[in-house]
Amino acid sequence: MRMYDIILKKRQGFELTTEEINFFVRGYTAGEIPDYQAAALLMAIFFRGLNSRETADLTLAMASSGERVDLSGIPGCKVDKHSTGGVGDKTTLVLAPLVAAAGVSVAKMSGRGLGHTGGTVDKLGSIPGFKVNLTPDDFIRQVREVGVAVVAQTGNLVPADKKLYALRDVTATVDSIPLIASSVMSKKIAAGADAIVLDVKAGSGAFMRSVDEASTLARAMVAIGRQAGKKTVAVISDMDQPLGFAVGNALEVREAIETLSGQGPSDLRELCLVLGGHMLVLAGAATDVEEGMNRLAGLLERGRALDKFREMVKAQGGDPRVADEPDLLPEASYKEQVKAQEDRYVAAIHAERIGRVAMLLGAGRKTREDTIDPAVGVVLHKKVGDRVKVGDVLATLHVNNPDNLATARQLIAGAFTFSSSAPGVKKLIHGVVGLQGVVYQCLS
Amino acid sequence: MRMYDIILKKRQGFELTTEEINFFVRGYTAGEIPDYQAAALLMAIFFRGLNSRETADLTLAMASSGERVDLSGIPGCKVDKHSTGGVGDKTTLVLAPLVAAAGVSVAKMSGRGLGHTGGTVDKLGSIPGFKVNLTPDDFIRQVREVGVAVVAQTGNLVPADKKLYALRDVTATVDSIPLIASSVMSKKIAAGADAIVLDVKAGSGAFMRSVDEASTLARAMVAIGRQAGKKTVAVISDMDQPLGFAVGNALEVREAIETLSGQGPSDLRELCLVLGGHMLVLAGAATDVEEGMNRLAGLLERGRALDKFREMVKAQGGDPRVADEPDLLPEASYKEQVKAQEDRYVAAIHAERIGRVAMLLGAGRKTREDTIDPAVGVVLHKKVGDRVKVGDVLATLHVNNPDNLATARQLIAGAFTFSSSAPGVKKLIHGVVGLQGVVYQCLS
Repeated sequence: MRMYDIILKKRQGFELTTEEINFFVRGYTAGEIPDYQAAALLMAIFFRGLNSRETADLTLAMASSGERVDLSGIPGCKVDKHSTGGVGDKTTLVLAPLVAAAGVSVAKMSGRGLGHTGGTVDKLGSIPGFKVNLTPDDFIRQVREVGVAVVAQTGNLVPADKKLYALRDVTATVDSIPLIASSVMSKKIAAGADAIVLDVKAGSGAFMRSVDEASTLARAMVAIGRQAGKKTVAVISDMDQPLGFAVGNALEVREAIETLSGQGPSDLRELCLVLGGHMLVLAGAATDVEEGMNRLAGLLERGRALDKFREMVKAQGGDPRVADEPDLLPEASYKEQVKAQEDRYVAAIHAERIGRVAMLLGAGRKTREDTIDPAVGVVLHKKVGDRVKVGDVLATLHVNNPDNLATARQLIAGAFTFSSSAPGVKKLIHGVVGLQGVVYQCLS
Repeated sequence: MRMYDIILKKRQGFELTTEEINFFVRGYTAGEIPDYQAAALLMAIFFRGLNSRETADLTLAMASSGERVDLSGIPGCKVDKHSTGGVGDKTTLVLAPLVAAAGVSVAKMSGRGLGHTGGTVDKLGSIPGFKVNLTPDDFIRQVREVGVAVVAQTGNLVPADKKLYALRDVTATVDSIPLIASSVMSKKIAAGADAIVLDVKAGSGAFMRSVDEASTLARAMVAIGRQAGKKTVAVISDMDQPLGFAVGNALEVREAIETLSGQGPSDLRELCLVLGGHMLVLAGAATDVEEGMNRLAGLLERGRALDKFREMVKAQGGDPRVADEPDLLPEASYKEQVKAQEDRYVAAIHAERIGRVAMLLGAGRKTREDTIDPAVGVVLHKKVGDRVKVGDVLATLHVNNPDNLATARQLIAGAFTFSSSAPGVKKLIHGVVGLQGVVYQCLS
């Protein structure tokens, strides 16, 4: 088998065999196939695509390229949740303890943030004492004992994806649906869960700008999950404005705690209930999503989710008092308000720009080497549809280093679009892709 | 300027600017742009194409990437001729002395052969004593004194093409019309001629299998020539069967000598007259192609072309007696005949397969490191349209090393297709692409 022939075959629009895809992934990971041949194949894939069988094969080959997490020590059905990345997306902080409070084990490995979207482990890292690096044994033990653990990805998981992603990043081949789908799903499969709930974001703050694109990606990922024998559901949710109000690590933890306490922003709460409802169904802990959502809502009201959060924080070495005294979280040294200049309605809030402001203030990383400031970020006071009057606060910037403050103010102001009449109601959930009509049963 | 943005722009189907193309060619030649980014761009170009302006810019950037041949020491208009490569194509051996005999200087640099088509300098190298490596000064001096020199390419001409071609060869991006056209034309432009006659081959022995493809390539190359200020004409000629009868270095020299003596195969003679006619027109030595062809035919009849060949061989250190005693050329130690098994008409002769047989016998190189045997090869006895009877000799294999003989016999037999009725007459010249209606004048 020769890499040349594989490139030519895909370039000509033919379907690659499982053996050809395995040959490529193994050879490239091992350094036997050079970057330039991989780059040519990736560009040919960009133009010719991969069908669902090829995409699943690519995913499985990547998932098998390194270590795999073994969750067999945890009883019951393990459901993972993955978001394609959004601004102010702190759903995992709420969902992990919430779903665990419903009796479903949550063994979650999460990445660090890069670019304008934050990473879950960075957010949790803002809790004083909280450890995101557990040994595999401690990780499993905590899930068995507490029902939930959220840790940083460790080990040599999916080295093929690391290498391919780095190459795609410099050869303009990132935005290919089968390549995105296989990258995400290979990591989920290697992470060892039995079932996967995907939160595919669509909008100005997401990688997929339109609902159509997001749906295509969602279908591709669900198809891979099906072919890989993992029950998979994708929820397409809105990322045309930030989720909730807070953007920045400790600020988002604070908002997650409010939500776990039965309050919090309505969009964040709703998304957590929908995603959590699907997780309960996949785990066999609810017969339908509505039932699951009702159970979860009850757990929020009765403080059970916050209890589980407190337990988790304690188990991972963090200060559990933050659950009741969020002021124990790091706070920025000063706050800058951005105010409205006229009486109008908020028509849009460009999520990516808000994310970039938070990054500019120090809440995110531009490169993997950057360190982040857990305290800083942006808190919105108005969301799309809100009426504002001159002088109303649109957003508060939480600042430690004022170097980029002028730029940040400008970006924030530019992120808001106003209209003279109330804009139409924005949908939070654009759709769900899954196995319609099938009652999920946990097979493990 | 970033290579990433250039890849993305082309991938999205946008036109690259002159500056972007120069940035790429300079950076890649200098080793500043890595192979994997160049590979991604080449594949994007394969799918998106280059318009005629971009193709001309790429060509000129490549032509300027290294040394350029300075032919200014030779008076008059210098016309180069280039063939896209065919089996049994010995036209340069005939054309160079023939056109020189008409008073038009021929300063020809030629490549060595690779794959199933032979190289002109390899063929000339089979003449005892013939030197294909002249210093630039000796090259120019010989053209001034004798009117003609055919030498191996020297110097660091078009390093960008060498590097890009090597990359295309391993990334399945060779067969892109703008990339082929720019590769050929960059070398012609760097070789210093004022005008260029292209022989674009179409058929089973050529890179372009159909006349349509060959026409597209011809138009692309003529457009580049025009944009580069070089008068350019492309003749599309048939390569569905080998040109002439002989395939193999000394065997082809022998056939060229016959043709220079006013005899030789009719297809070879006709193609040389057509190409030569265009060369005379471009050089301002004939007012139209027909007049040029008539003059050249007269030079063949009167032995002037053979005289010039004798002069050239002598000037380059070869034994001039070969012009009159071709038996002085190296000869293979034994000959194997392949005979017809039935009474039929020859319907087709797969040129590439004949070329591969010659290569198998030692007449060509599979890799650049291979050495060639000047004596061996194939001589056809029948061509398309000929009637054959059982026992008629179809071809003679000229062999020194019988190792591959069985395979060679089999390939030769498989290269012939027969029919029960006479096939239609094959056209040798499929068309001409050039500046219709324009009287060419040499501007130099």
